[in-house]
Amino acid sequence: MDLSTLIGLIVGFGFVVYGILSGGSLMLFVNWPSVFIVCGGTLGAVLINYPLADVLGVIKVAKNAFLHKEESPNAIIGTLVSFAETARREGILSLEQQAQTLDDDFLKNGINLAVDGTEPEYIKEIMSTELDYIAERHKTGAGIFENTALYAPAFGMIGTLIGLVQMLVQMSDPSTIGPAMAVALITTFYGALIANLICNPIAGKLKARSSNEILIKQLCIEGIMAIQSGDNPRIVEGKLKAFLSPSQRTATE
Amino acid sequence: MDLSTLIGLIVGFGFVVYGILSGGSLMLFVNWPSVFIVCGGTLGAVLINYPLADVLGVIKVAKNAFLHKEESPNAIIGTLVSFAETARREGILSLEQQAQTLDDDFLKNGINLAVDGTEPEYIKEIMSTELDYIAERHKTGAGIFENTALYAPAFGMIGTLIGLVQMLVQMSDPSTIGPAMAVALITTFYGALIANLICNPIAGKLKARSSNEILIKQLCIEGIMAIQSGDNPRIVEGKLKAFLSPSQRTATE
Amino acid sequence: MDLSTLIGLIVGFGFVVYGILSGGSLMLFVNWPSVFIVCGGTLGAVLINYPLADVLGVIKVAKNAFLHKEESPNAIIGTLVSFAETARREGILSLEQQAQTLDDDFLKNGINLAVDGTEPEYIKEIMSTELDYIAERHKTGAGIFENTALYAPAFGMIGTLIGLVQMLVQMSDPSTIGPAMAVALITTFYGALIANLICNPIAGKLKARSSNEILIKQLCIEGIMAIQSGDNPRIVEGKLKAFLSPSQRTATE
Amino acid sequence: MDLSTLIGLIVGFGFVVYGILSGGSLMLFVNWPSVFIVCGGTLGAVLINYPLADVLGVIKVAKNAFLHKEESPNAIIGTLVSFAETARREGILSLEQQAQTLDDDFLKNGINLAVDGTEPEYIKEIMSTELDYIAERHKTGAGIFENTALYAPAFGMIGTLIGLVQMLVQMSDPSTIGPAMAVALITTFYGALIANLICNPIAGKLKARSSNEILIKQLCIEGIMAIQSGDNPRIVEGKLKAFLSPSQRTATE
Amino acid sequence: MDLSTLIGLIVGFGFVVYGILSGGSLMLFVNWPSVFIVCGGTLGAVLINYPLADVLGVIKVAKNAFLHKEESPNAIIGTLVSFAETARREGILSLEQQAQTLDDDFLKNGINLAVDGTEPEYIKEIMSTELDYIAERHKTGAGIFENTALYAPAFGMIGTLIGLVQMLVQMSDPSTIGPAMAVALITTFYGALIANLICNPIAGKLKARSSNEILIKQLCIEGIMAIQSGDNPRIVEGKLKAFLSPSQRTATE
Repeated sequence: MDLSTLIGLIVGFGFVVYGILSGGSLMLFVNWPSVFIVCGGTLGAVLINYPLADVLGVIKVAKNAFLHKEESPNAIIGTLVSFAETARREGILSLEQQAQTLDDDFLKNGINLAVDGTEPEYIKEIMSTELDYIAERHKTGAGIFENTALYAPAFGMIGTLIGLVQMLVQMSDPSTIGPAMAVALITTFYGALIANLICNPIAGKLKARSSNEILIKQLCIEGIMAIQSGDNPRIVEGKLKAFLSPSQRTATE
Repeated sequence: MDLSTLIGLIVGFGFVVYGILSGGSLMLFVNWPSVFIVCGGTLGAVLINYPLADVLGVIKVAKNAFLHKEESPNAIIGTLVSFAETARREGILSLEQQAQTLDDDFLKNGINLAVDGTEPEYIKEIMSTELDYIAERHKTGAGIFENTALYAPAFGMIGTLIGLVQMLVQMSDPSTIGPAMAVALITTFYGALIANLICNPIAGKLKARSSNEILIKQLCIEGIMAIQSGDNPRIVEGKLKAFLSPSQRTATE
Repeated sequence: MDLSTLIGLIVGFGFVVYGILSGGSLMLFVNWPSVFIVCGGTLGAVLINYPLADVLGVIKVAKNAFLHKEESPNAIIGTLVSFAETARREGILSLEQQAQTLDDDFLKNGINLAVDGTEPEYIKEIMSTELDYIAERHKTGAGIFENTALYAPAFGMIGTLIGLVQMLVQMSDPSTIGPAMAVALITTFYGALIANLICNPIAGKLKARSSNEILIKQLCIEGIMAIQSGDNPRIVEGKLKAFLSPSQRTATE
Repeated sequence: MDLSTLIGLIVGFGFVVYGILSGGSLMLFVNWPSVFIVCGGTLGAVLINYPLADVLGVIKVAKNAFLHKEESPNAIIGTLVSFAETARREGILSLEQQAQTLDDDFLKNGINLAVDGTEPEYIKEIMSTELDYIAERHKTGAGIFENTALYAPAFGMIGTLIGLVQMLVQMSDPSTIGPAMAVALITTFYGALIANLICNPIAGKLKARSSNEILIKQLCIEGIMAIQSGDNPRIVEGKLKAFLSPSQRTATE
Repeated sequence: MDLSTLIGLIVGFGFVVYGILSGGSLMLFVNWPSVFIVCGGTLGAVLINYPLADVLGVIKVAKNAFLHKEESPNAIIGTLVSFAETARREGILSLEQQAQTLDDDFLKNGINLAVDGTEPEYIKEIMSTELDYIAERHKTGAGIFENTALYAPAFGMIGTLIGLVQMLVQMSDPSTIGPAMAVALITTFYGALIANLICNPIAGKLKARSSNEILIKQLCIEGIMAIQSGDNPRIVEGKLKAFLSPSQRTATE
């Protein structure tokens, strides 16, 4: 899990639990029927909203996103510049073997296309199409979390309405009103917590991850184009560094 | 009906009903005047909002979307690659007969245009225009559900306001306040349920369906262009696979 | 008035009035100061928001939109294909007379430009500019209703705040609280009804109308281009039919 | 001040004040601490949000927008057509003197560039850049009012929360609850009024003004291009009239 | 700190504190558990939402934005025009030394590329890529504040729900209800204040700063292009002044 997600979860839940404990027992906020209405209703809405494959896929996507180490743009630039040097010195065919050692399928396929002598426009077209659809799929992944963040508070409100209606009908004994209303409000509390401490932040992290991955893939496309056109490695480096912030640039040297 | 929609409806309504039953009778939440205000008002607003043909059409669109089997991008790529092989071996005219067996009118028309020797730019233009307007009509379809999801909670609130005003005016006997307010809140409950467990999720599913259909139609356009220009079937496959995710790609092999 | 608008108004107001009557008298919901605050305030805001010409113009636009018969894309395609036939058989100059019988000024001007032998790019430029600005004006028209739908609930809330403040200050006799608060809520009720049963649905209908009109005008531009370049009438029909849905296409034959 | 803004302010405030007076004294709604919280807080937020120059500039922009007479597209078209005639008859150099009499700096500079024999692409580039940045500055101007319309209700709510907290803590004497809560609600009332009767409508009017000014400047660019290329004045008029609505067009003749 | 931010903070907090003091003690609004729930929860959500580097980076970005003096577009135009003069008189190579004295790395790199005789399209591509990614990073910076402005009120509501539930359960003694509810509302107050007086205004200021910086960098790109193509300094000035408002233009002279 990446560090800030872990810290964020600990900090966020820690302070909310601390806030609860400073005023009473944590058990007041555990109510199983409320859990079922909010989580069950939200799950139902998400399942209707998305194809089953997307819902199941998002779990894997999220797991990968949080557990896999993020690639660094600098590392990719280093790789591409060294490829450009090899290609200049020994010819582009010499990249074939080096490409086999790469983890990144996207870059490997691109190098293979270049080694095969495919026309540059065709390489660019095929890689850009692939990148477009990768971006599209990332958007779907983040979108599932964003939609969950909309459904959860809605079912929180639905649960509170159910509780209020039941409380108001049986309002014979005023002393039961308080506790009944407290229980009714718990679903709203669950919905707000799911949306604001889990789903929206995770959707945000997935989007940041996606931008980074897309940046790296754009570097790959630019780099392969430059290598194939036989650019000087210094020029390749210059072109690719333009994608980075000044602080990222110094980090390499 | 596609599996996740069915599961979603069962899960969503199941948990909401369970939540209600764990606190009282289900009959508390059935109130006919409330049903009429929310459903009638929402229906009225949707009918003013959309041409009659669109409102009637959306029912058919939704039914088709949920009952018809979705096409798989892999199957279409397989078909297009086999067409490319036939066209290479036996000439493009030999596709005429094969095209007749296709279910997909969009692809069939495209193949027919190519067989007729129509100019590539013209085929691309005509197919892209058609695709643009298909996307437009899909957006209208999903838009009707999205707008219903906005009107339903609004009429839920209108119904609650009606109930509150009637309750507040006749507030002579305090013991009737509770039940009267319970009834007033039921319209808000209906509106929230219609929006969040029916209309918004269905709009989402229609959009996912639409993306899939548009992807398949873009594959058709790309494929026909490649077949007509006499591309090698391997190249055709490479170009089309760039549209798929890595997992979809492996699924074919 | 187009059918669905009429049905929608009857259905929507019918069910809301029914819902009111099932719980008490309709007169409870008629309160003149509330009408003045909501309608007067909303009107004021709209008048500040838009130039006077736009506010006055929207009434005419809305009237036209609801009372005039909508043109059918199929009819326009028929007209354009028959023009293409005439132009092929008797030369483009022979269209001059036929164009005089057209109701649609946009198409008539386009045909006249083509008959005058104006260059195609210039015709396309002039007609596209006109279409862009027609779309712009339609958007202003729908925008006025959309903004009214935002202002009306805001003034509903302002009215309720006025009522609440007046009630709370004079809270000496508890028995008057109920009726006073009922009156205060009526402005919110008015605001919600104006937004959700009148303004938002009408804005939606105007947008649907606008899409249809823009589609027809795009057909005109495409058709005139094709006629001027001397396309075969069959090709003209093929190009134009790509704009229609499959069901619209069969409707012609 | 343009007419509809004046009428709108009178109508809007008139009906709100009438609504207040029909239920009690206007003085109930005047509370200085509430004014300070809402106006002071909103002003503070706007000052943090925007550079000082923008905040001061917007007052001048708004004043100009409401007091200066709007230019008519028809008048500009007339000017441009007469320039086209002069240029055709006496050569483009003859426009130099006429241009000096123009009020509109944008048009004057453009004519001067054309008279100087600058290349058309360069004139178009320089005038389009200028137009882009004019549009950008107009957007900033309207944006300040839109943001104020977001901050004002937020500080209205903040004021109400302050009032509620103070009331709830000192809730020893039930008879003071009503008046204290009334005062607490007044800040929400102020916030809603500032947003919906002042800031949002003015932002809307500024946007309508901006569209009109941009339309006129686009007419100027198109017209200068046409004059420089020596177009026939009739053609110039035809091209420029395509920007207008049918009703605007007849207005000239 | 730029002047309007400082004034805004003083004005905004000053009036809110004044509003509080005019009705009671400031200490009523200081409650440590409430601070912990709102700030801790918000911090947690932001940390999950963004990579750690972005969260830490935003502090530096914000500090720079508020403390560093903003560059003036006029000054940059002056510099570029003087460079154009030098380049015309003494050749483009003579700019090498002058460029070393520049503070702005972006402009310095651009001049160096031009001095090195790099092709104009390549300079434009590399500088535009860099500008795109600078804009992207600015958007991330402002986005963190905008998201904080969404999370803070959400955790304010979560805190109020916690307080309400605890109050309602222990509702045995009616006299404690008031103070308990007052405390519950304080988290909502904190959330609203953080969003509307700190985060949203700062996000706005960062965006205004970013527009200014992007404008200056676009001036640099345009200027270097013009210098390299050997444009007359007067023409360079004309091109660059088109980016400015009339008032900014006069400010130079």
